[in-house]
Amino acid sequence: MKSIKEFNIEELKRLSQEIRDKIIEIVSKNGGHLSSTLGAVELIVAMHKVFDVTKDPFIFDVSHQAYAHKLITDRWDKFETLRQFNGISGFINPKESSYDYFIAGHSSTSISIALGSAKAIKLKGENRIPIVLIGDGSMSAGMVYEALNELGDLKLPVVIILNDNEMSIAKPIGAISNYLSRMMAGKFYQKLKKKTEQLLTYLPDSASYLAKKFDESLRLITPGMLFEELGIEYIGPIDGHNLKELIEVYQKAKELQKPVIIHAQTLKGKGYKIAEGSLEHWHGVGPFDIESGKSLKKSSEKPNATTIFSNILLKLAKRDKNIVGVTAAMPSGTGINRLIEAFPDRFWDVAIAEQHAVTSMSAMAKEGFKPYVTIYSTFLQRGYDQIIHDVCLMKNPVKFAIDRAGIVGEDGETHQGAFDISYLRTIPNMTLIAPRSPKNFEKVMEFVNNFNFPIAFRYPRGSFLDDDRYPPKEISFGKGELLKEGESNILFIGYGNGVGKAIIVKDLLQINSNIDVALIDLVFVKPLDEDLLLDLSKRYNKWFIFSDSAKIGGVYGAISEFLNKYRLKKIEVISFEYEDEFIPHGKVTDVEEYLELTPKQLVLRVLRSLK
Amino acid sequence: MKSIKEFNIEELKRLSQEIRDKIIEIVSKNGGHLSSTLGAVELIVAMHKVFDVTKDPFIFDVSHQAYAHKLITDRWDKFETLRQFNGISGFINPKESSYDYFIAGHSSTSISIALGSAKAIKLKGENRIPIVLIGDGSMSAGMVYEALNELGDLKLPVVIILNDNEMSIAKPIGAISNYLSRMMAGKFYQKLKKKTEQLLTYLPDSASYLAKKFDESLRLITPGMLFEELGIEYIGPIDGHNLKELIEVYQKAKELQKPVIIHAQTLKGKGYKIAEGSLEHWHGVGPFDIESGKSLKKSSEKPNATTIFSNILLKLAKRDKNIVGVTAAMPSGTGINRLIEAFPDRFWDVAIAEQHAVTSMSAMAKEGFKPYVTIYSTFLQRGYDQIIHDVCLMKNPVKFAIDRAGIVGEDGETHQGAFDISYLRTIPNMTLIAPRSPKNFEKVMEFVNNFNFPIAFRYPRGSFLDDDRYPPKEISFGKGELLKEGESNILFIGYGNGVGKAIIVKDLLQINSNIDVALIDLVFVKPLDEDLLLDLSKRYNKWFIFSDSAKIGGVYGAISEFLNKYRLKKIEVISFEYEDEFIPHGKVTDVEEYLELTPKQLVLRVLRSLK
Repeated sequence: MKSIKEFNIEELKRLSQEIRDKIIEIVSKNGGHLSSTLGAVELIVAMHKVFDVTKDPFIFDVSHQAYAHKLITDRWDKFETLRQFNGISGFINPKESSYDYFIAGHSSTSISIALGSAKAIKLKGENRIPIVLIGDGSMSAGMVYEALNELGDLKLPVVIILNDNEMSIAKPIGAISNYLSRMMAGKFYQKLKKKTEQLLTYLPDSASYLAKKFDESLRLITPGMLFEELGIEYIGPIDGHNLKELIEVYQKAKELQKPVIIHAQTLKGKGYKIAEGSLEHWHGVGPFDIESGKSLKKSSEKPNATTIFSNILLKLAKRDKNIVGVTAAMPSGTGINRLIEAFPDRFWDVAIAEQHAVTSMSAMAKEGFKPYVTIYSTFLQRGYDQIIHDVCLMKNPVKFAIDRAGIVGEDGETHQGAFDISYLRTIPNMTLIAPRSPKNFEKVMEFVNNFNFPIAFRYPRGSFLDDDRYPPKEISFGKGELLKEGESNILFIGYGNGVGKAIIVKDLLQINSNIDVALIDLVFVKPLDEDLLLDLSKRYNKWFIFSDSAKIGGVYGAISEFLNKYRLKKIEVISFEYEDEFIPHGKVTDVEEYLELTPKQLVLRVLRSLK
Repeated sequence: MKSIKEFNIEELKRLSQEIRDKIIEIVSKNGGHLSSTLGAVELIVAMHKVFDVTKDPFIFDVSHQAYAHKLITDRWDKFETLRQFNGISGFINPKESSYDYFIAGHSSTSISIALGSAKAIKLKGENRIPIVLIGDGSMSAGMVYEALNELGDLKLPVVIILNDNEMSIAKPIGAISNYLSRMMAGKFYQKLKKKTEQLLTYLPDSASYLAKKFDESLRLITPGMLFEELGIEYIGPIDGHNLKELIEVYQKAKELQKPVIIHAQTLKGKGYKIAEGSLEHWHGVGPFDIESGKSLKKSSEKPNATTIFSNILLKLAKRDKNIVGVTAAMPSGTGINRLIEAFPDRFWDVAIAEQHAVTSMSAMAKEGFKPYVTIYSTFLQRGYDQIIHDVCLMKNPVKFAIDRAGIVGEDGETHQGAFDISYLRTIPNMTLIAPRSPKNFEKVMEFVNNFNFPIAFRYPRGSFLDDDRYPPKEISFGKGELLKEGESNILFIGYGNGVGKAIIVKDLLQINSNIDVALIDLVFVKPLDEDLLLDLSKRYNKWFIFSDSAKIGGVYGAISEFLNKYRLKKIEVISFEYEDEFIPHGKVTDVEEYLELTPKQLVLRVLRSLK
């Protein structure tokens, strides 16, 4: 078979079309990232034509746009397992293929990776060059500038393809986005730059100083000056769907042997008319009908936790003018889009900028407002220092709404919301709470809204397992809720969505084995309701923990520390949290089965432990 | 008494001189940040003249340069207690004065704070304006760009004074630094800009489109284009020691009612000849003789842990060419300066850029190198997501050298290295180890250097408490070391520098109370040496933990979880780690006394627990 490196333009075009068809076919069945990955097909095909994937590091930022890369390398046949358990990951994953250089899932890491590779390549004296594909949406995160700052200084060879679809996940945000748009209108400057360069070649050597000055003055009016000021060569803007132009430009960039940004304009969703140019909706999708574009997902009767959250916040924000909030580039993912629509001067999308989101909202809290920082569990890791240093040290009453807590399903390893309890619990002045059900969520948020110190509440992707089986009660600081006493010596301790799981397992145990357990909703994991637990320790000595979180330092950590503190010798604790390993992608039910966390498996685990 | 706002230029100059004298006097006695704070005197005096500290948020980035602010507001007399326990903090601290708006100690948070304040001020409809003082060194951290990105978009009034002493803490690093230097040489552009502006006013209104185009083209050749491209007005460069010019420019900036950067050039150490213009040495100092500039600190006979670390790394790097490493703007603070000198192509200072430092080194690990990421415990919080997502998920063998673990002394609350064990222990694929003494450090680093997975080792500011009382042994993965058996039922568990503390307390107990305890060095807190602990649990049922770390999720967390796992009912554990509160500044001994962690207090605490 002919290698892609030997393909001519026509063959590459045909390949691009086949890739598009395959992506649309599979994503319409399995769901996945669609519009960005369709928009990047030619960018990636040209990468494989010009660079050598067997030696050059191919680095995909976020890597949700890299399906074409997977299809080109060794995964055409397996691609139908996209995002399924044990199937092809939706992101780049070195465990999956030797052609996948570096894992990604969180944005804006690519230029740092490339710079590390470039340093290594130089030290080893090898003839390889790192090539980065990064979207304009990733350009808002500070990490990119940290990397550009060093790259522009060291000037090591790195080719950066800036895939500019003027969209990010949702709409473009911020000054850098504005800047890129202006650059797009800058063909005028392009011509001027070319002329200047020609002009300079006519000058005699003796005029070198003047020429340099002249060059400096005129270079500045090229559209890439923001990058050129940082010492990075700039080429563009070019048409990101024109394979001939792409290949020429890539080739030129490769030969420069210094850092280059190629600014390519693409159309999100290119090749699937219904998605072309659309905003957030076609970024990541569930299964859909290709003809009509309509979603095939049976609309679940249960509302998801995100919708419940935004409904409640909307209601609260109507009556409490001090409520403000941010999302970091996930407006509809977090439900904050509805708040932004309703209160455009009180809610903001600050772009992919978690550090800034946390600290700026802490200042609003200092000024007397009630800021909700609404970020997925996994992305909040980016704001960790700011939570400690700018929020908790100041005791400012910032409210962290942690969406996607627990297993997130198909997005997988990089997106699981496993660690937030562990990394937040150790911070002084922090309070941790979690709702268990829709109505209980209202009570939790009423408490949160009136709470005057830093507080974080977590809730799952999708719907709660518990449908208000137990009528919600008012929340008191640090107080758990005894949902039922039991006739056995067994106590189920639930936290957040874990309460729902505990209820299901409790019912199964009752029905199958006639074991009647006690059940509490911990409500707070920091501070723990020590009085309640001490009281329960007198009646129940076999405790099971249900929570969608890492065991180390998580609810298990909190309970273990509590038991030691009070020297409760007789209590045995078993946690059904996540063990010490990263959690793979796949349907939540498949992943839970792998982790032995389905209700049936949990019943067996309980029974086994009683022997 | 006349308010500073009524002072004329001569009076302000006199005040500036008095402030300088006071700073030199007190810092020469107490130690502290010297050169940056001397360089910023006029910048701050002019802030107080033009803006209103009783209502405008005064926001100091890092805030080590803000001594003048403290002296101007309400702390002239108390200033002699600078950095002492219960005395004036070396940083801005709202608990200390109502004129201190927002805590700082970590860099690059100021623009985010200002933007949060600006949003709040706008919503409240108040006539106040946030004013930021930020050094050029802070401009390398990505967080600044996240904030500028939103600020340039929203265009809320914020005055940013960029204090450019071309130095950062050590030497200026990176493309942004180069850029600022070029701007400094840009007086030529300044004049041109003025002329253009004049020219434009002469054009008829009908020529507006052309005029705009013309303006756009020429504006670009002003030195501030990097900022202006982001939508931020730029004024400068100006002389940061010329009070008259500063006051005029501040006034103008205040009236603009939009985001403005004032680029001011200052001389670090200004007014103290010996320190003027010097690099890292005079950034932060201990007590010194004003006449000669010589340090008054008795040189401790014990080498500090940082020096031991860099000695060992130097030795290893000589024989192992795959060793590389970074510091994030703390070259001499981490000892990496000596590695950079010896191996300039294998060690880098990447500026204040912890996120980039972590991820770029992970790519070097992927390429087969052995990267040492050398960052203080408190600053590593900035790279948390990158440790999870770019290092541990990839299982890349990055080596985290965590300096300043534990109480750091006078720098205080924002700098304590308390949380690293807790936030790292929950990450899958991570190994945690700590040296207890100089010679043992060599063994630990030999192990670390040959270890092929992510690993972190922590060591204290200053010297180890243990001087190799027990001969160091080879390290085996996950194996602790039994240093001595005891005749009582008591086991002391030490980790890192905590082993030294345990040894001292052990000796005191033996001498004073004739109690003979067993002693182990845990060596690894992840994974725990379960075999050793299980064995010891048979002979000792009273365990005490000694470690310079937060108790929640720390060594106590690890041991508590272990005891539950094995249902060791008889063991009682008491931890001498840090309780759940932020730790104040002051001499380590004073702080430890406050926390009841001096050896004498610990003996009493042990004895009390035996009753």
